[in-house]
Amino acid sequence: MVLFRQRLGDALRSRRTELGLTLREVSGVARVSLGYISEVERGQKEASSELLSSLCDALEVPLSVVLRDVAHAVAVEEAALEPTPITVRTRPAEVVASAA
Amino acid sequence: MVLFRQRLGDALRSRRTELGLTLREVSGVARVSLGYISEVERGQKEASSELLSSLCDALEVPLSVVLRDVAHAVAVEEAALEPTPITVRTRPAEVVASAA
Repeated sequence: MVLFRQRLGDALRSRRTELGLTLREVSGVARVSLGYISEVERGQKEASSELLSSLCDALEVPLSVVLRDVAHAVAVEEAALEPTPITVRTRPAEVVASAA
Repeated sequence: MVLFRQRLGDALRSRRTELGLTLREVSGVARVSLGYISEVERGQKEASSELLSSLCDALEVPLSVVLRDVAHAVAVEEAALEPTPITVRTRPAEVVASAA
């Protein structure tokens, strides 16, 4: 199961480190507890919509851009989880039998 | 402030009505209470990541597609909220004064 909060956490942490900001700095600007932001970044806690908006403001990135990044990461994860048709040729039964 | 849960609710309801499904039907397939889904659709409750995945499965739409739709709707809302430069010409002071 693809979990939104995990890819959202990745996107938010990625943006924060891109700006060279510490959790403490973002916490101060967004007026959200450091522990909460840390848990959101690690995908352990759901971010409320209000917190998400505050974090985007503090990270100077539009929410729409974060969501696009998350949508992309989720699409990659979905593609990896899709059952792929088996294309590997199996060895003929007699070869398998003789190998036993 | 642009709230994620409101645009997410719109996207989920839009997909459900597109499929011609009732809240009760989605509730049955997703095994989530009808009241919860209804509140999520109206943007009144945050959907947990697990619920969101279940809803997407029930609505036969990848989470990534829902998130892309939400990102687009949020971008439109952000553009509408941006302060636009004033381009309307104001009437000269004397005309305004004579109109008083």
